[in-house]
Amino acid sequence: MTLRKKAASITMAIVAIMLFITTAIASPPKYVFFFLGDGMSNTQIQATEAYLATKYAVDNGLETGPKAGELNSAYLLNPNNRLKMTQMPVAGMQTTYDSFALMTDSASSATAFASGVKTRSAVIGMDNTMTTSYKSVAQLAREHGMKVGIISSVPLNHATPAAYYASVANRNLYNSIATQMTQTGYEFFGGGGLISPEGPAQDGDTNNNIWNMLGDAGYTVLNDRTSIMELKNNPKDKVVCINPWLQDGQAMPYAIDRPETNLSLAEMTDVAINVLSGNTGTNGNGFFLMVEGGKIDWACHANDAVAVIGDMIDFDNAVSTALEFYKRYPDDTLIVVTGDHETGGMTIGHATTGYKAYYDKLLGQKNSFVYFNENQWPEYKEKYSQAVCENSDTLNAANSMITLIQNAFGLNWEELSTYQQDRLSWAWYHSICGYDKNDSKNAHLYGGYEPITVSITHILNEQASIGWTSYAHTGVPVPLFAQGSDAGTFSGFYDNTDIAKKLASIMDIADELPIVK
Amino acid sequence: MTLRKKAASITMAIVAIMLFITTAIASPPKYVFFFLGDGMSNTQIQATEAYLATKYAVDNGLETGPKAGELNSAYLLNPNNRLKMTQMPVAGMQTTYDSFALMTDSASSATAFASGVKTRSAVIGMDNTMTTSYKSVAQLAREHGMKVGIISSVPLNHATPAAYYASVANRNLYNSIATQMTQTGYEFFGGGGLISPEGPAQDGDTNNNIWNMLGDAGYTVLNDRTSIMELKNNPKDKVVCINPWLQDGQAMPYAIDRPETNLSLAEMTDVAINVLSGNTGTNGNGFFLMVEGGKIDWACHANDAVAVIGDMIDFDNAVSTALEFYKRYPDDTLIVVTGDHETGGMTIGHATTGYKAYYDKLLGQKNSFVYFNENQWPEYKEKYSQAVCENSDTLNAANSMITLIQNAFGLNWEELSTYQQDRLSWAWYHSICGYDKNDSKNAHLYGGYEPITVSITHILNEQASIGWTSYAHTGVPVPLFAQGSDAGTFSGFYDNTDIAKKLASIMDIADELPIVK
Repeated sequence: MTLRKKAASITMAIVAIMLFITTAIASPPKYVFFFLGDGMSNTQIQATEAYLATKYAVDNGLETGPKAGELNSAYLLNPNNRLKMTQMPVAGMQTTYDSFALMTDSASSATAFASGVKTRSAVIGMDNTMTTSYKSVAQLAREHGMKVGIISSVPLNHATPAAYYASVANRNLYNSIATQMTQTGYEFFGGGGLISPEGPAQDGDTNNNIWNMLGDAGYTVLNDRTSIMELKNNPKDKVVCINPWLQDGQAMPYAIDRPETNLSLAEMTDVAINVLSGNTGTNGNGFFLMVEGGKIDWACHANDAVAVIGDMIDFDNAVSTALEFYKRYPDDTLIVVTGDHETGGMTIGHATTGYKAYYDKLLGQKNSFVYFNENQWPEYKEKYSQAVCENSDTLNAANSMITLIQNAFGLNWEELSTYQQDRLSWAWYHSICGYDKNDSKNAHLYGGYEPITVSITHILNEQASIGWTSYAHTGVPVPLFAQGSDAGTFSGFYDNTDIAKKLASIMDIADELPIVK
Repeated sequence: MTLRKKAASITMAIVAIMLFITTAIASPPKYVFFFLGDGMSNTQIQATEAYLATKYAVDNGLETGPKAGELNSAYLLNPNNRLKMTQMPVAGMQTTYDSFALMTDSASSATAFASGVKTRSAVIGMDNTMTTSYKSVAQLAREHGMKVGIISSVPLNHATPAAYYASVANRNLYNSIATQMTQTGYEFFGGGGLISPEGPAQDGDTNNNIWNMLGDAGYTVLNDRTSIMELKNNPKDKVVCINPWLQDGQAMPYAIDRPETNLSLAEMTDVAINVLSGNTGTNGNGFFLMVEGGKIDWACHANDAVAVIGDMIDFDNAVSTALEFYKRYPDDTLIVVTGDHETGGMTIGHATTGYKAYYDKLLGQKNSFVYFNENQWPEYKEKYSQAVCENSDTLNAANSMITLIQNAFGLNWEELSTYQQDRLSWAWYHSICGYDKNDSKNAHLYGGYEPITVSITHILNEQASIGWTSYAHTGVPVPLFAQGSDAGTFSGFYDNTDIAKKLASIMDIADELPIVK
């Protein structure tokens, strides 16, 4: 007789008793966290864990594996090198396509998991004919007396956060979205800034001064680290916390570019928890907090794996903050972590490396592609463009470029194959002297990004064994992780609209979704 | 008061009663199916469902979506266009890396989920120092009186099936593996043939005549459709059922190449079920049946999406056969479906198509890359090689090629971009007149495959919006689906070694794994 048989009757009796106890005290979770890694799939997750395992080995003076290109599974299995999200007890998967697109956009996907509605790409909080508006789980939570917080590392009126408070026919109606934001009454907004806060983003948009409207609605806008962090000691409802430095398009900087005067996503989450739960305890009716790691997606669009990994770690640290809160209120807290779609066609393998992985190659990249484009490339281009384009003293320019790439990305020219050197040389020339953007080869190779920079990250990434196939979103199903009250509901393989439906049911805020506004 | 609250007390009471009933009759599942899609991840799954949804639209004279490149989600959500596996109630995810490789091989991954042991790539059923041998769940099931069946669409002594009965330091010791196969006593083997059945595959291998050994051990070898199918009416223990036509390397043909005189994986599975359960009912001690869709992987290596999809459908049809069995014995059956790793770095998005998908482009491909290479390309090459390589009358040769590609793959030359035409032209020239295989660009573009064929499938696939980054396995976590007795155990995110451990526990065949031989 095996242990299983011996234990069966005892276990089953205990389970039955526990179920009775559990059902007796069952009630909806009071504190609900929804973490959304924009562009995050299994690939972004596994690449980050491989990076952490490799960094662990290198930092501790260990070989990454017995042979070159190997990675010891002991480092990968070490919980300290794992993301918190993959260690949560419940996992599920969701299909991400929208009404008509196998590759969803972030507006329609956010509408799906915020309101339970399949819609057309670019539409927020409305059906695919853009005639009916629907309530999000955040709005329903609000109606049930819960406090609400919305955090995003990208602008607060970008598609994902917008789906939690706005209904618009097009995600680019930024002023309209921000106008609806001012009318939410939500207790907390935090992260990036606002797009078009003082006028229409495009034809058909509203023409409001959002800053004035926020003030009129009783909101305080903070944008320095000290004031924002002070909310932990003196929480205050109705605040808009904007990170001091907005790097690109009103977004928080990439985590790997972030100066100490800025806030991490985890710090912003920690502040939000304090605001939503109050200074001395927790809000009586609980809260719903949505946290988006939005720049995972932006880095994936640009095919910059190190920037992706930096923001993945930053995002997971925010999850960690929620898990700390969970420890205090395990019976009343639900944490859900998922992505809205994969971005970039990122993979964990490349034709040039086969079965080998060299994530140590990634450790030399110091900043994101954006940082390089804005802070290092212009000076180089200014200095050498005449020489290169007129074909005079190009050797000096090339050597200077090789040094620059080595310093900024850790990419060693001597280690590159002829094919890689050729691609990099053409990209360098194209970035300096211009190129035909309509040429099909150039469009494929650069995707509209700065040729030299996207070629550097492509080659650096493939050296590590990371491939990319697109500059857009892709259609692969993405994982979901859950922990806490009713988390088991999220096991299985389901559609993204089911996420909103499961949340509404668990939170007891609606009998069924969608609910018309 | 919402419906949830009203329903809560009633539901909970029912659940509690049901749990008591369930625990009273709880016992290990008697009939355990383990389906292994080699090289199958979320991408292969979603690509297949998008193909089925598109084919449904085209077959019914419907537009795939309101605009070109769109795909109506109603077709994707239609259960008839979904794979059976994604409609199973339980989903989980597994990390696939082996002892030292982020990108596992099929030997070490199979050792993980068959025996619960992390090992080095190429090793089967042994630890990573190749000193200790371990038992597989199939061997343990056998020891507990269960019948055992092993099916693979690739050779029966290939890595994945081998891990269920053999222990060898290197997967290429094919004669040694087959020798161990003859000693199993397993009731059923089916699928492909044997590699090196009459002598050593390499130095260090055994030198046995496997056919003789199988006969001596009481096995009947069948290799015609009629005899194999007759087993459904007159089941017989200890049979080796080899598909009549072995296409490439002793494997069953790709599903899209299969003549009617051959067997599908579903038919082979159906025969196995009849053998293992007996003619008139089920075996008293139950059975364990492993079914590998091995050529999903082979098609992924070659970056041929249509061949992948064909074998995915064939594999899922085999799962369907098990689900039919499940309906007869729902309380006694467990079905698990998973992959061992992803292959090819396949993605659902490409730089050239952005947010659009055109899976209808795939509907014109009639056969696999192998079929083209073996049956269509040689004749063309013979006829035109002199003209092309000597640069005489190349226009005629090119036009003939364009027609051939259109007929065999549905690839329309006129629709290609300049960059795609350039790539195809070079590949055509290289395939006809030879090329430098050591050149880094050629290695990247062709991966050692026939240049023209791999370029055709690359371009056809990217037209549909499918990308590839590798010719090898990749390291992304893969999904697992389960249904039946104790299926819930497979929810969550875990390591591939945990699969064997969960199976051993559920089947009550071992207290813990691994178990030394």
